[in-house]
Amino acid sequence: MKLYERPGFPNPARIRIVLAEKKLDQDIEYVNVDLIGAEHKALPYLSRNPLGVLPALELDDGTVLAESTAITEYLDNLDGNPVLTGRTAREKGMIHMMQRRAESEVLDAVGHYFHHATGGLGPVLQAFKSPDWAGRKEWGEREGRRALAGMRYFDEVLGRTSFVAGPTFSMADITLLAGLWFAGAAGLAVPEDLAALKAWQGRVSELPSVKHRGGQDFLPEDLKRMGF
Amino acid sequence: MKLYERPGFPNPARIRIVLAEKKLDQDIEYVNVDLIGAEHKALPYLSRNPLGVLPALELDDGTVLAESTAITEYLDNLDGNPVLTGRTAREKGMIHMMQRRAESEVLDAVGHYFHHATGGLGPVLQAFKSPDWAGRKEWGEREGRRALAGMRYFDEVLGRTSFVAGPTFSMADITLLAGLWFAGAAGLAVPEDLAALKAWQGRVSELPSVKHRGGQDFLPEDLKRMGF
Repeated sequence: MKLYERPGFPNPARIRIVLAEKKLDQDIEYVNVDLIGAEHKALPYLSRNPLGVLPALELDDGTVLAESTAITEYLDNLDGNPVLTGRTAREKGMIHMMQRRAESEVLDAVGHYFHHATGGLGPVLQAFKSPDWAGRKEWGEREGRRALAGMRYFDEVLGRTSFVAGPTFSMADITLLAGLWFAGAAGLAVPEDLAALKAWQGRVSELPSVKHRGGQDFLPEDLKRMGF
Repeated sequence: MKLYERPGFPNPARIRIVLAEKKLDQDIEYVNVDLIGAEHKALPYLSRNPLGVLPALELDDGTVLAESTAITEYLDNLDGNPVLTGRTAREKGMIHMMQRRAESEVLDAVGHYFHHATGGLGPVLQAFKSPDWAGRKEWGEREGRRALAGMRYFDEVLGRTSFVAGPTFSMADITLLAGLWFAGAAGLAVPEDLAALKAWQGRVSELPSVKHRGGQDFLPEDLKRMGF
């Protein structure tokens, strides 16, 4: 299998954590796509994923899976023991519900803030992410406030349960973690009073799969230079 | 189980189709929520689903599942034969990928168009859906164009396969169908030249689960009066 990704970015990081949890990180060929230069918005990448987003997983027969939730479903079910996406109907329901909320209320909202209310990753990518239109900054700022409200919702959830979707670490935790990581990089710090969220973040950040992410435990130099 | 829904609306319709496909439509108590009056944006509904969206499924022990994908995962896995969400790792990956694309590129894009570029469902709901801000109409119109581009993408897909995620009817078809239904109601007709998409729409619309949706095969009177 080949994983098209950009090390250090939130959605690719989700799959790195899944691969480490499932002990599949040695079975993958990693292909670094120049996201800042918008390589994923042009051919030949678009022939693999016409929607032009990262990551994408190419199977050995050439089939390409995109969308982080879908890639996670695939990888988690390969061994018949889907601990990250749920083993029972009820677990699947809870995990998918909380995963979707983490995505829509935090991770995606942060992305909209970053690409519309700030300079994002520079002009090459911005031409695709946020073409010039009158309301872009205002909309981005609204999304930033929505991301902070999302954090507050998850703080309440994590005051009641150990992990985002119940008693065990799941895909929903991975999505929220990627959202908070992205938020920090985008300048949306977790508010100090969200104690349960911060405690959970500290705890899951120490999990081996999160800490090392398949050997990828530091930011690439070009991202460090950009202030990440 | 209780389903909190609003008959005739796109996301509740997704669950009605799932229930009919899984022959569970007689096992459910249907609770009609006044969506146009924004009943789902206030207590007591918010105590069931703090994100204030429909539908929500309340299990017999009081657990509430929200988000249509999560409810579908739950219902589809109850009998151990998840034909709508995928039986193998590969099927699950493909179905979740195409479902997510149908949601983000068509269904959600149509919703953004409807609630921002048009008068939506009237002033009570609009206060929640689209508070007044300078760029709202422009953003809504951009989303409408994105929905049309999404239809074009699925037309290409359906030129190659019988159903959205492969050779069988799945959750991905249900999401796209709800997206096209919503698009039609919102005034975004499927362009005439998208022959494969139109042929697929005609074919799946004749499926018994789609046609009758648990006995719900017509629009409520108040929606007809609004021109739906």
